Parts: sequence; C-alpha cells; structure tokens
Amino acid sequence: MQRLDSQLITQEGDLVLLVSPTNKKIITRLRSGEQIHTHRGVVYHDQLIGVSWGSEIATHTGSTYILLKPSLNDLLLETRRSTQIMYPKDIGYVLLKLGIGEGQIVVEAGSGSGALTMAFAWYIGDSGKIISYDVNENVQNLARKNLSRLGLEDRVIFKNRDIANGFDETNVDALFLDVPNPQDYLHQVHQALKGGGNFGAILPTTNQVSRLLNEFYRFHFGFVEVCEILIRYYKPVAERLRPTDRMVAHTGYLIFARPIKPSSSIGQYKESLP
Amino acid sequence: MQRLDSQLITQEGDLVLLVSPTNKKIITRLRSGEQIHTHRGVVYHDQLIGVSWGSEIATHTGSTYILLKPSLNDLLLETRRSTQIMYPKDIGYVLLKLGIGEGQIVVEAGSGSGALTMAFAWYIGDSGKIISYDVNENVQNLARKNLSRLGLEDRVIFKNRDIANGFDETNVDALFLDVPNPQDYLHQVHQALKGGGNFGAILPTTNQVSRLLNEFYRFHFGFVEVCEILIRYYKPVAERLRPTDRMVAHTGYLIFARPIKPSSSIGQYKESLP
Amino acid sequence: MQRLDSQLITQEGDLVLLVSPTNKKIITRLRSGEQIHTHRGVVYHDQLIGVSWGSEIATHTGSTYILLKPSLNDLLLETRRSTQIMYPKDIGYVLLKLGIGEGQIVVEAGSGSGALTMAFAWYIGDSGKIISYDVNENVQNLARKNLSRLGLEDRVIFKNRDIANGFDETNVDALFLDVPNPQDYLHQVHQALKGGGNFGAILPTTNQVSRLLNEFYRFHFGFVEVCEILIRYYKPVAERLRPTDRMVAHTGYLIFARPIKPSSSIGQYKESLP
Amino acid sequence: MQRLDSQLITQEGDLVLLVSPTNKKIITRLRSGEQIHTHRGVVYHDQLIGVSWGSEIATHTGSTYILLKPSLNDLLLETRRSTQIMYPKDIGYVLLKLGIGEGQIVVEAGSGSGALTMAFAWYIGDSGKIISYDVNENVQNLARKNLSRLGLEDRVIFKNRDIANGFDETNVDALFLDVPNPQDYLHQVHQALKGGGNFGAILPTTNQVSRLLNEFYRFHFGFVEVCEILIRYYKPVAERLRPTDRMVAHTGYLIFARPIKPSSSIGQYKESLP
Repeated sequence: MQRLDSQLITQEGDLVLLVSPTNKKIITRLRSGEQIHTHRGVVYHDQLIGVSWGSEIATHTGSTYILLKPSLNDLLLETRRSTQIMYPKDIGYVLLKLGIGEGQIVVEAGSGSGALTMAFAWYIGDSGKIISYDVNENVQNLARKNLSRLGLEDRVIFKNRDIANGFDETNVDALFLDVPNPQDYLHQVHQALKGGGNFGAILPTTNQVSRLLNEFYRFHFGFVEVCEILIRYYKPVAERLRPTDRMVAHTGYLIFARPIKPSSSIGQYKESLP
Repeated sequence: MQRLDSQLITQEGDLVLLVSPTNKKIITRLRSGEQIHTHRGVVYHDQLIGVSWGSEIATHTGSTYILLKPSLNDLLLETRRSTQIMYPKDIGYVLLKLGIGEGQIVVEAGSGSGALTMAFAWYIGDSGKIISYDVNENVQNLARKNLSRLGLEDRVIFKNRDIANGFDETNVDALFLDVPNPQDYLHQVHQALKGGGNFGAILPTTNQVSRLLNEFYRFHFGFVEVCEILIRYYKPVAERLRPTDRMVAHTGYLIFARPIKPSSSIGQYKESLP
Repeated sequence: MQRLDSQLITQEGDLVLLVSPTNKKIITRLRSGEQIHTHRGVVYHDQLIGVSWGSEIATHTGSTYILLKPSLNDLLLETRRSTQIMYPKDIGYVLLKLGIGEGQIVVEAGSGSGALTMAFAWYIGDSGKIISYDVNENVQNLARKNLSRLGLEDRVIFKNRDIANGFDETNVDALFLDVPNPQDYLHQVHQALKGGGNFGAILPTTNQVSRLLNEFYRFHFGFVEVCEILIRYYKPVAERLRPTDRMVAHTGYLIFARPIKPSSSIGQYKESLP
Repeated sequence: MQRLDSQLITQEGDLVLLVSPTNKKIITRLRSGEQIHTHRGVVYHDQLIGVSWGSEIATHTGSTYILLKPSLNDLLLETRRSTQIMYPKDIGYVLLKLGIGEGQIVVEAGSGSGALTMAFAWYIGDSGKIISYDVNENVQNLARKNLSRLGLEDRVIFKNRDIANGFDETNVDALFLDVPNPQDYLHQVHQALKGGGNFGAILPTTNQVSRLLNEFYRFHFGFVEVCEILIRYYKPVAERLRPTDRMVAHTGYLIFARPIKPSSSIGQYKESLP
C-alpha cells in the first residue's frame, strides 16, 4: 500500500512557526546550534529539531510556545513589510482568477514587500518562474529577503527597472500590476502577455479603477471583471456566535482582464458576473 | 539568457476554453479529429490545434468564439455539478489558510462534485496526494470525472466510505470537511491530522457553526477562526462605476482550527483576528 | 390614570393593509360601500370596518387575508412607481441625518414617485412643509397621488420647475437632491438652506459622487459624509439560521454636507467618521 | 403667499450644537447668562443667542466653533451613555419598520441610555406616548436626563419594573425589546400589542436570534423578518474616493414580527424578502 504520511518529525532546515499563548508569532528556519531570544526567554533550535509538529516547547524561563508548520497564510501575515501588503483574502482569489499553477511564467510589478510574490512562487513549482519588477531597490531587497526566508528565491527573478520601458518577457501566462497607474502600461502588458492571458491589478480608489477601465478597450482587453472581497470574522464562541465588532472595510478593488487580438470583435467579449 | 516563454501555440491534449460573444463557455481537451457541436455551429478540434492562444475561431456557420487557456477559476465555475459547489472566493482563502502546497497529503470529505478537490489537486503537484471520502458513490463518480477532465485524477484517491469509521491516513498536512455535521468527526480528524495540522470546514448555518465550535475544546483543537467571505462585483464601466445591483449574500461560514496535544494549555491558544 | 390605548377597531377612513397567505399586499382606505376585487375573490369594505386590527378576513370565495395597519415601511414598499424609489434602509438613515422632524421646512428635487416625499411628509407633522420640485409633470403627478393615498397631500407643495432657476424658498431646514448632477445646483442649494442646514443626496455611481465632492469646497460646504447602507436578510428559521442566498448589493451612495459661511475656516470642518 | 421660512436666528431655549475644527462637539440648550467652559476657552450663551445658524463663534481665547442646529443623528451620537446605544443606521430602519408616527402609543424595554427612546419620542409628536420599562433605575435615570435635554420628557413615561410581570398597556401600536432574552416575554408582548401591531427586537448573537425565532410560532407571531444593517463610510475626497480602512462590522441583528390571532392560519403568513 502506498505510504501517504507526510513528514512527522521536524528536521534541520524546516521552516517553523512558534506561537505563544498571547499569540505572538515567530517564524524561523531550523539550524542546529542557533537560538531564538524571545520576550519570554530563550528557545534553542536543537529543542525544536526532531520533535513532533504541534508540540509545546518551553523557553529557559518556563514560558511555552506551540511549534507549528506555518501555512502560506501564516507566512503572508508575518511578512516583513515596508509597504502595504496584499491580504490573503485578496491573494487567494487572485491566484484562481489568474490561473496560477505549476510551470507558469508570471510577471508582476511592483515587487512591494513580496507578499504576492511569495504566493505566486509557492504555487508555480520548480518548473515555473516569477519575474518581479520594481523601481525601488530597497523595497525589492526586502521582497528578496522574504522570498529567501521561504527558500523560494530560485523561482523569482527580480528586475530593478521601470516598466514604462516594457517587460523583457513575451507570451507570459499571467501578469499582475500593483502600481498606482496601471492604465499607463497596458501597451506593455499586452506585448508581454500571451493571447488571452490573465491580467490583474489592485487599486485602492474608485478614480483609479475608472482610469484603468477607460483604457482597456483602447488596448484590446476584454473579459473585464471588477470586484472587491470582504472578509468578516466571527468571535468563535459557540454560545455567543456573532461577528467581531470591527472589520477591515477596504483593501483595494481587484480588476481582471484578458488581452484579445485587435481583429476580434472586442466589445462583444464581456465577463459575465456569476 | 534563460528562455521564459511559456507555450505559445495550442497543441493536441491541451485543455481549452471557448467563449462566445454572449459569454457561453465550453471547456474541452483537444483531440485531433473530434468536433464540438455548439448552438452556434460546429467547431473542429483541428481548427483549434496549432493556433495562438487568444485567437478568434469561426464555427461552420460563421459564428465566433475566442480560444483561451482556462484559469483555475474558469475550470471551477464550469464544473459539472450535482451538489452545491464551493465558490472561488472561498476556495482561494481555504488554500492559503490550510497551507496547501507541493507535496502535501490532504484529506477531504465529502468529495461532492469535486470543485475543492480540483483546486487542491491543482496545487499539490505530482508529489502530493489528495484522499477524498464520500458515502455517495454517484456524487463521487462525478467528482472523478471532473478531475479526469483536468488530467489530475492521478493525484486523487477516492474512497467511497463513511468517515464515521475513521480515516485510513495519519499525520496528514490538512483536512477539510464539507459535511453537515463536522462536530461528529473531530476525534477522527484529530487522529488523521499531524500535530498542529490544518483543519477546515464550511457550513451554511449559524447553528451548525455553534455545534462545531462547541466540540473543538473537548477534542483539543485551538487556533479557531470563523469567517465569511463576500465578493461584490462592479459594473466595469469607466464613466459609471458602481456595484452590480444584486450579489450572492451567502455561501457558507468558513471555520478553521488546529489540533493541539492534550497536554497543551489549549484554552490559551487562540487565533488572533487580523 | 391616563388612557394609553390607541385605536382598537378599524373605522371608515382608515388606511389598511391586506396580506394574503402568499404575501400579496393590498393597501386601501376604507370607504363604506366600496369593494376590492382580488385574484382570490371580492372583499367588501364594510367587512373591514369596525373589526379588530389583525383580524383574518374571508373573500366571497373563502380565501383569507390578514387585516393590518400599514407601517411606513409597508407604505413605502407598496408605492406605485414610475421611477426607481429609495429603499427604507436608505430613507431611515436620511431622516436622522437630515434631522427631519415636526415643523420643519424641507425641500427636495426630484419628486420621483414620491417615496422619500412620503417619508418626509409622515414625519414633519401638520406644522411642517415639504416643497418638492420636479421637471417631469407625469412623474410628479404620480408622487401627488401616492401622497394623497396617505392623506398627506396638504403637507406637500409640488413645483413643476427646473431647479437650475433656483428654489423659491430660503432658510429651509433640510434639502435633499435625488438628481443625476447635484453638483450643478450647489449654489442654489446654499441659497435655499439655512446656515449649517442639512443637505443630502443619493447617487448611483462613484463618478457622480466624485463630481459632487469636487464642488463642495468651492460652494462652502463642510461636514461632508459619504456612505452606503447595506441590508442583509436572514432566513427566519430557528434551527437553520443563515443569510438569504442573494441580496441587493447597491442602491446608491448617500452624501451629506452642511453649508458654512464663506468667512469660516471651511477646510477645517470635517465630519468625523464614527 | 404662504411663508415657509423656518427659524432664522437662534433664540433662548434653542438646542444648539457647537463643533470645533477638530470635530469636538458640544450640545447645549441656550440660557441667557450661562457659559460653556471648553478646552479651547469660554463661550457665553449670550454670544449664541440671536445669531444666524451656521455662524462661526469665537471663544474668549480666539478659538472658533461653528454653531449648528443639531440633527437627530447629532443628538443620538452625542447621547450620554452608560450602556451600548443603538446606532442611527439601525434606529432609522426600526422607525420605518415599526411604523412609528404621530399619535402612536409605543412601548419599549429596556430604556437603556435612551437613544431609541429619544428617536421614538422625536417622531410620535405631542399626541403620542412612549412607555419605557427598565429594571435598572440608574440606567433609566440617565435615559430620563437624555430625554429632558431634548425637551421631550413629557412624551415618555418611565416605569422601573420587570416586564416579566407584564405590561400595563394593551392595544399599543408598536413594541420594541432591547433585552437579552426577548423570547421569554412574547406572551406579555402579545397581550400588549394591538392585533397585527409591530414588534421589534435587537440581539447581538445568532444564538439569541435562534431562541427568539423558535418561540414566535408558539406565541402566534407571523410576518417575521431578520436582518442586519451595515453602514460603510467613504473618505470624502473627490480625486481619491474609497471606503474608509475599517468599519463597524456588527451592532446587532434586527428582528421584526407581528402578533396574529390564534385562529389565523399563522404558519402561512410569512414576510416576503424584498
């Protein structure tokens, strides 16, 4: 019978998440001999190697942490950031809409702190490649570090360049812009994407969305979708189930479109709303 | 210089999406010699092989379709269904929260029409495995067909069994229940998941959520999160940007938790809400 | 002891609501000798006079209706309309934000089908007055009929005029515009409203909201608030409590502001968001 | 021609709202000779009497305030509170659903800080009456003070009593319960309301809503509606229109129903959802 157990015991090189009872989170990669200085005492990496996932770990002062394998969600939320990062609620939907998957070639700009880059790199496998453009070198270096922490740096090529000069790549599967003025680069986007490839963008204001929509038809994009995704948390109490008092009301509008051949009857191809 | 172009021209065996100007969608796998009978005339597979993605294709009556590479979102929305399927807005978030990724062992029940199974299979790569339980053989056969259409059937093991008798697998990375009474299987879930592994469920009513929450503490689960995800579409018109008149108000509540060792100070480990 | 009972028995002249078991609604004013021809048989007004509110009434074919005193909500939802009417969720909030109350002088344009007019007239009492402008005489005649049905026509003065020529009134308490281009009338609004009076508007698109906001500062309005109100219904089933599957996603954006003296340090006075 | 101007100049006895440039709000009733000590200096009531609404007022230190006539919304938001008060978004809708209007007899429990009481009293006119029950005398005294500040205390009768013992009133038009266990009082509610009268309640948790729904049918209530109202604010900036970052996610679920004669075919009468 086929063995289906996945790794039971932590080992050197694993990426781990430590969570304190007050929900302080630490993400680190296990290296024998190293140690973590927390506000609640010292944890030695050697304590964390060769134990079961889900174990409770004591610091030298007796405080405890739970040792977990971080989910992509954990990794995204703990991303070191110098810019606003995209939220998991948005990233999850972007992955599906852009059709991100194994072996794909995906272009993005800007790199930002690398949260979306991380998610893309996580899902394209070793046979795919992300090319990430940003004009800000400092920001991009942070993205690079965040990717390295996950061991995914080999899947990403960073380019410290202005996309106004165009993308080097052609015929890519998907292209995502997290820049304030995506409408200024639609010609470049069209040249980089394969026919009918997936374009996406995130924009905070309605004015920006209108400016982008206004240019889609000029540059032969169809199948346009504009949406926003809201996540509403509940207090997880069985006998008093209710939403939390406050929530994030807005991160950004998501816009998707696909380039179509100029010869096509473009205006006709519209995304139907489910 | 590294070549980054992805496949430019369609070829035999590709999964393709045809979209009509009225947004009728057809998904098929290209087989030389076959044909598609549409309401708008016949399309020959040989017309669709060896052409550029994004091309406009004419039927024998002169109607046109655009030829696209389907995104995962397209595939999910066009899934043949005998049961309510999960929506992309929910699936995207579930992927991130459960930490689905390459090489993982993931268990789910029930199989349903296979929409979530498809998304899981899409993202675990060839080195991962999905084990999908369902008591309803007919429903499961449909899920199997939907997986085959994507060529992902080798990544999934279907088991036509009642999970009340437990899961065969132990130490799995993630486990998702889309059944009406998940609280009845938490013992089985705990035995199947690795320590601190990721458990998720979707439930339509608040009463069901309360019943599940009520059992988490008894069966040593912590890091509980309850949320709902709303997607609001906008009419994509630059000069008259506004939400659509109506929207889907509810698909289900998403619940996530992680099994913790009975020895742990369980009550203390709570998910913090972002 | 003070008698606090309100009218127990229906009487000639009362406005009544009949509701069938399939939720068909009929609103009428009781007139001895008249009759109502329903799809379920004839009901005689004399049957409806002198009975208890909440009684079950039989038609001549034996079908039943419940006899109720209509709430303002019932009256609004059953308004005969030739245009899109405002929804109770929006109207309720507008009443409070505009400070509508007894004895107030309120101006509105356009009259539309009179739904908002009805709500204003309902709440200003006999000592107040609504002045309702519309360029479309047919629409305004419908509004007049809707007001008459409620017996509130004496509280409203309809003016079949273009507000570009200004309002006759000055120093009014509140002014509401339900027109596509409110920004074109801010000078007129400022002249009609008392200092610091309450201005409101409803607009369907974000572009219109931006155009209005853009003019507020030029015409000395402060305390600007923009919001939208969403109502989400639940299936009222104790054991399976959940939101309805679909909901109204958008009716319009509500915008409120107050005119300030040109001498004021206008820019400083901003509405704080609760 | 009929004079339609409302009061142009402030006078002794008026309720006024002062707003600072930093949006600090002060509500007071004008009394010649009195003064207001603000963090920004002293304002003399005599400065505020006989001036135009909307005037800018200087304190003795030269700081400025705008002098406004408070809307009901302003009054509600500035209510002194010892308990959670209901929000305008909810109150506005409750007014319409309960059909609150001139001359009505309305019962409520508990009084709480009196926010809802204020709104009811504002809209029933001199010919109506509110009877407000609360077991907590201190809370009720605060509600009384809040009513007095508005000069509406004559419209409200406070009763410091447990509603388990029933209401004194019968045949009232509307009855609202803001108590944790409304399902325990449905018999009393039925006896107090006129046939088909309007019952409303607000409850924070889904479990409470289920418990209330569960009892409606036993006590012959029909036309049940459950909903929640969400208000989403936008940053009022013309060129960068977007929702605020965060919002109130939950205040409470609103539940409405109407008592029906036991003889009626109760189960049949259901509220239709718009």
